Amino acid sequence: MKAEIIAVGSELLTPDRLDTNSLYLTRRLNDLGIAVTRKTVVGDEREALRDAFSSSLARAELVISTGGLGPTLDDLTRETVSELLHRKLLLNESILRHIEARLSRFGRVMSENNKRQALVPEGATVLENPNGTAPGLWMESDGRVLILLPGPPAELQAIFAQHLESRLARMSGGRKLYSREMRVVGLGESEVDRRAAPIYSTYVGIETTILAAPGEIQIHLRSWSSDATATEEKLKEVVERLTLALGEHVFTITGESMEQTVSRELTRHRVTIAAAESCTGGLLAERLTRVPGSSAYFRGGVVCYSNDLKTAWADVPPELIESQGAVSAAVAQALASGIRRRTGATVGVGVTGIAGPSGGTPEKPVGLVHIALADSTSVTDRVLQLLGDRDRIRWQASQMALDMVRRYLLRLPPSIPAGPSGSQS
Amino acid sequence: MKAEIIAVGSELLTPDRLDTNSLYLTRRLNDLGIAVTRKTVVGDEREALRDAFSSSLARAELVISTGGLGPTLDDLTRETVSELLHRKLLLNESILRHIEARLSRFGRVMSENNKRQALVPEGATVLENPNGTAPGLWMESDGRVLILLPGPPAELQAIFAQHLESRLARMSGGRKLYSREMRVVGLGESEVDRRAAPIYSTYVGIETTILAAPGEIQIHLRSWSSDATATEEKLKEVVERLTLALGEHVFTITGESMEQTVSRELTRHRVTIAAAESCTGGLLAERLTRVPGSSAYFRGGVVCYSNDLKTAWADVPPELIESQGAVSAAVAQALASGIRRRTGATVGVGVTGIAGPSGGTPEKPVGLVHIALADSTSVTDRVLQLLGDRDRIRWQASQMALDMVRRYLLRLPPSIPAGPSGSQS
Repeated sequence: MKAEIIAVGSELLTPDRLDTNSLYLTRRLNDLGIAVTRKTVVGDEREALRDAFSSSLARAELVISTGGLGPTLDDLTRETVSELLHRKLLLNESILRHIEARLSRFGRVMSENNKRQALVPEGATVLENPNGTAPGLWMESDGRVLILLPGPPAELQAIFAQHLESRLARMSGGRKLYSREMRVVGLGESEVDRRAAPIYSTYVGIETTILAAPGEIQIHLRSWSSDATATEEKLKEVVERLTLALGEHVFTITGESMEQTVSRELTRHRVTIAAAESCTGGLLAERLTRVPGSSAYFRGGVVCYSNDLKTAWADVPPELIESQGAVSAAVAQALASGIRRRTGATVGVGVTGIAGPSGGTPEKPVGLVHIALADSTSVTDRVLQLLGDRDRIRWQASQMALDMVRRYLLRLPPSIPAGPSGSQS
Repeated sequence: MKAEIIAVGSELLTPDRLDTNSLYLTRRLNDLGIAVTRKTVVGDEREALRDAFSSSLARAELVISTGGLGPTLDDLTRETVSELLHRKLLLNESILRHIEARLSRFGRVMSENNKRQALVPEGATVLENPNGTAPGLWMESDGRVLILLPGPPAELQAIFAQHLESRLARMSGGRKLYSREMRVVGLGESEVDRRAAPIYSTYVGIETTILAAPGEIQIHLRSWSSDATATEEKLKEVVERLTLALGEHVFTITGESMEQTVSRELTRHRVTIAAAESCTGGLLAERLTRVPGSSAYFRGGVVCYSNDLKTAWADVPPELIESQGAVSAAVAQALASGIRRRTGATVGVGVTGIAGPSGGTPEKPVGLVHIALADSTSVTDRVLQLLGDRDRIRWQASQMALDMVRRYLLRLPPSIPAGPSGSQS
């Protein structure tokens, strides 16, 4: 079964915005066995919209649009599609009440414009929006299915999960997409491909894509098939062979993020953690606490830019900072040990470096980062020379710090809990 | 003048890849006074390609495609377009030599497939590719211009800069794009529109788009014009009138992020800041330190999930936590005051709340967040009931905390520095 996606919004035709919703939709549609055959981006303009919808409907059995359902006058998707399909727009009282209730929760009153979001083309099924005022709309016409979704990702995704998943599953045939995503840290793209290509190239029917993302390389394996068992087995085999070839550099074979991997392993080993950060400015703590349930392993963190706070919060000796400089292996180690002792965590992580763009010197250039990890018996550290702008350096530093924790946990005996169980809050 | 962009490549229809070349092209085209009116993504498939090119050429004076010019058999752009325009493909000896020379520099021999890249549709102008083997192609047909560019960004960008810039400048008139971006916090999309529409709708020639982004509403104003002075003045006027209508909710008229605004104002007022965070897990510190030069105003931050660390790091009295609960206005205030005193910052910010998905109760549901701001004379606080998932709640909480700082700084006398200047590191 084939689908087209139409992203509506003049802002998507500027140099500042990309239609990223289509990635989410493509993933979910592929999982249901539906291929995306075209994506179109059009502005909020009646003629262009009309043309885009009518030609997509002429080609594909399923057309999904995103955006243009807002309350403002330039939101024209609902009106244009109704005209195109010769449907009247009727005011839906239940949506109207939903909008009213939602706005009043925020202490707001419904405006005339908001009421436009309660208009429903005749014969359309309303897909309730738990995260916003504009519902999704499901319409059928001449054997085609047309689905209108709002543009904000949280709204679109909630509607898809709650209403579309099951409806679309019934429509699509037996062939489905099976996929795996492996992620690798500490190797470059060409080295990953050098090791992986001799393996993946022998598997007919599995498409392999290698993608570089900040701080990691992703290997995407995809196979369309109607034979679940055989395909799953083949994917399992290639993933195992790739894992052998790439070793500990593989941090996930399920496409999870580095912080998800680390969080899972911290929880499993009942290891608690604390962080003392300088150049990452809280990013390490933020990533460690992104994952639900992080209070089970995250004890606490400090962001200490200034030297006096490194001493006050992590007991870094002032004379050490004086002699080695704030950006040094010794200070990273002291930050790690200090924050561990202060918080009673199993392990402490210290990060200090120069994120730039200024602050670099010939001896200590922008991108120089020291990371240390301390437990009750020892402290280890790594030095990195990272490339890129401030954002990229901070991201990579946090990624390598998380990777250091991951590798530390890999060395622990799997069955013996390595520390006290997590704290409350 | 209007242009359409066609991105060719089956990988662009998977969940893993986006057409990012169109952002570069749009920026360059806009600078030349050319608007992009549609973007299409199609796979490497003859029928789909033919249809995409023929309908784009029917609508727009200029069509630019990216991708599908490679040496492999699934690269079909050149062939399909030649068929569509009824042009013969002729082998171009000079391109052939360029390819041969380039490959031999990398120690490779030209394959039969590579030779396909030397085929040129009759009447096409060859745009030499300094960074690769496939040249760009410029074709004219029925008053339309069709430009085929290779997909790799370095190749496409080099061809644009070397060959297209000047050619396209001659084609387009003197019209250029002038734009402004305002951002608003604390008002919903429809309320912003209710206040803004009576103003922007009176300005003919300025396109206005209102967009909801997490924690803010953006107003994009765009005007195509050949009269720089008049347009800049008109934009200035509409921005001023919108600012009057939206008041302090406007945090920028230059499209900067909330953290950039706050950082600039902290620096200007020489106010230093420190943060004690619970549910935001370091996100507030991370956003405050994202901006280069943040060491001038950011003193430090603590992430204290557990009650004991709230006491240890920000002097929150244990009996206060006991009586009010960790998520309460009183604890937010104590966090703000405590971290301020501990760090010697001008202002302290405290955040405590329930980010979810678990941890909520009927009295204190997921999304309940208390934020407080303390200076040397007083503490103020706000309570929020935020909606959405964990990420969204954390983001909005950090946004509202930054906004509280922004509004605090607005109240300061503009000329008198309000605190000590920033620390080093």
